[in-house]
Amino acid sequence: MIKNDLFLRALRGETVDRPPVWMMRQAGRYLPEFIAIREKYDFFTRCSTPELASEITVQPIRRYGMDAAILFSDILVVPQAMNIPFKMKEGIGPWLDHPVRNQNAVDQVIIPEIQDSLGYVMEAIKATKELLNDEVPLIGFAGSPWTVFCYCVQGQGSKSFDKAKEFCFTQPIAAHQLLQKITTTTIAYLKEKVKAGVDAVQIFDSWGGMLSPRDYQEFSWGYINQIIEELKDESPVIVFGKGCWFALEDMARSNASALGVDWTVSPKLARQLTGNAITLQGNFDPARLFSSPGEIKSMVTKMINEFGKDRYIVNLGHGILPTIPLDNAKAFIDAVKEYQPEIV
Amino acid sequence: MIKNDLFLRALRGETVDRPPVWMMRQAGRYLPEFIAIREKYDFFTRCSTPELASEITVQPIRRYGMDAAILFSDILVVPQAMNIPFKMKEGIGPWLDHPVRNQNAVDQVIIPEIQDSLGYVMEAIKATKELLNDEVPLIGFAGSPWTVFCYCVQGQGSKSFDKAKEFCFTQPIAAHQLLQKITTTTIAYLKEKVKAGVDAVQIFDSWGGMLSPRDYQEFSWGYINQIIEELKDESPVIVFGKGCWFALEDMARSNASALGVDWTVSPKLARQLTGNAITLQGNFDPARLFSSPGEIKSMVTKMINEFGKDRYIVNLGHGILPTIPLDNAKAFIDAVKEYQPEIV
Repeated sequence: MIKNDLFLRALRGETVDRPPVWMMRQAGRYLPEFIAIREKYDFFTRCSTPELASEITVQPIRRYGMDAAILFSDILVVPQAMNIPFKMKEGIGPWLDHPVRNQNAVDQVIIPEIQDSLGYVMEAIKATKELLNDEVPLIGFAGSPWTVFCYCVQGQGSKSFDKAKEFCFTQPIAAHQLLQKITTTTIAYLKEKVKAGVDAVQIFDSWGGMLSPRDYQEFSWGYINQIIEELKDESPVIVFGKGCWFALEDMARSNASALGVDWTVSPKLARQLTGNAITLQGNFDPARLFSSPGEIKSMVTKMINEFGKDRYIVNLGHGILPTIPLDNAKAFIDAVKEYQPEIV
Repeated sequence: MIKNDLFLRALRGETVDRPPVWMMRQAGRYLPEFIAIREKYDFFTRCSTPELASEITVQPIRRYGMDAAILFSDILVVPQAMNIPFKMKEGIGPWLDHPVRNQNAVDQVIIPEIQDSLGYVMEAIKATKELLNDEVPLIGFAGSPWTVFCYCVQGQGSKSFDKAKEFCFTQPIAAHQLLQKITTTTIAYLKEKVKAGVDAVQIFDSWGGMLSPRDYQEFSWGYINQIIEELKDESPVIVFGKGCWFALEDMARSNASALGVDWTVSPKLARQLTGNAITLQGNFDPARLFSSPGEIKSMVTKMINEFGKDRYIVNLGHGILPTIPLDNAKAFIDAVKEYQPEIV
């Protein structure tokens, strides 16, 4: 049904001529056509208006022809639907007037009916599928419960998420209740997304790397694994854990279809830690897109050779930076499309 | 000469009854006696007045009796002496009006005479040695060239130090010139510190973990290793690389006396990666000091058992957080002093 199914084939571990490519945050601020929309509509309007979200989603596909689209949205739409009212504050980013920091606040967090509160996301998926016209697959995403929890407790972005960790270590029962509420909501949310038409889902654990290996098991991985188990029969699941190299062995034993890795893990070590048993996605340093297009192309070719062309999805190791030149983003995508396997 | 030489013996790899303990940022904002001084004197006054710096340095030793003191100072005194005039901006932290971002700016950076520009640090060391009265050793420190470079180019703190990396990847020649100037200055600075009386030096590579393993070799480790080679015959050198787990194997082959590790690396893996061949320092999650004193004590005991009591210095995996209760810091130190080796 999908004309370019390279991405889905890589997720299934099939042999391919070249790996598929997409970029985290590919629908974003480095694109002038995105900035034009951003100048007219605020953040939550862009997320909640299906015409805008679908248009933003397909912008990078039109310009560069990646092998997968990812629905424009935000991980914080989930807590918003749970009665945790995030704002976007100028110069600060996500902001909560009343962070969730005690049992009483956790009790007030609801598990919403997805269609009532997040129906607009499903409408955006349908609108995007129309625009994509079965050319490439569409990815839906959610934050990991731990990462969403970090924002809910800290109340804003942070370098150390010390308040979130303090809550876990001083009020573990309340913390686990909140994590479970987020998990339950996320499972229902992702199931609805699959029903609405996404071809795969990705879970972003942006802040899992803040935890020790033991605490990661308790406060992050256990909840991610619940999501994988509930989704695995309905959709491929990709888990991207930034800084979570220490958990790759456990992750590889799960029913995830692919694991995202960041650029601190060499391709060789990533393959070693995951026992060559799972599709990997990544891991170009987003700041390396500041190199010249020629250098980018040779680094990408080298990266593909090191990961191997099969069971591999070319991506960055984190979101593309807003100041990356358009030609450099193009060089990244083109290098993959022009890839020729090494003659051994 | 030094009465409690546990720390120095651990650095030499000698057998000890219990490991020594100190905490990164132990002279800092969690202590009411530090806050009392901070209310009267601004940041650079505290660093540059020997009476204040020495008093702040010994405050935690008086209260808790750690096995080593670390001179109160800041990594940014080095670029300040190099004609890079950092300010402390309210609510932002270190700030440069004119970040170093081109060849011309690099050319204007000077390699200073240490006694002229940083003599006050040597005075602070002498004053501290008087106060310490040979009870415990004194550690001197510097930022790694890469970490200092990050602030000089970014002009302020950052989550990704994208401007610093952009400078490296678009103007590598100028970037290496700046890194070398910082390295040359740091070597001279640390040598003067040793002459003034510090018993060991620690290099803080707080932002090395932002780099890929390959870029780390080029932009960080090579310069740190220059420092180690120049200092090794005069003083033990400890290298702490936050997020630099991927470089531990190379680091362990250097002439450093000890390596600091953060809490994302399990003790077992840290020993494995360093081939059991070097003293390790760390790696308690600073946020785990929010746990109860009882829990802290049992986690510390477990950590010592996992690292092993020899070739080990108990520490946090990063600086102590300002909001940690005093009793919890005490529990951390006491757990080490009360440590009894496991009966196998």
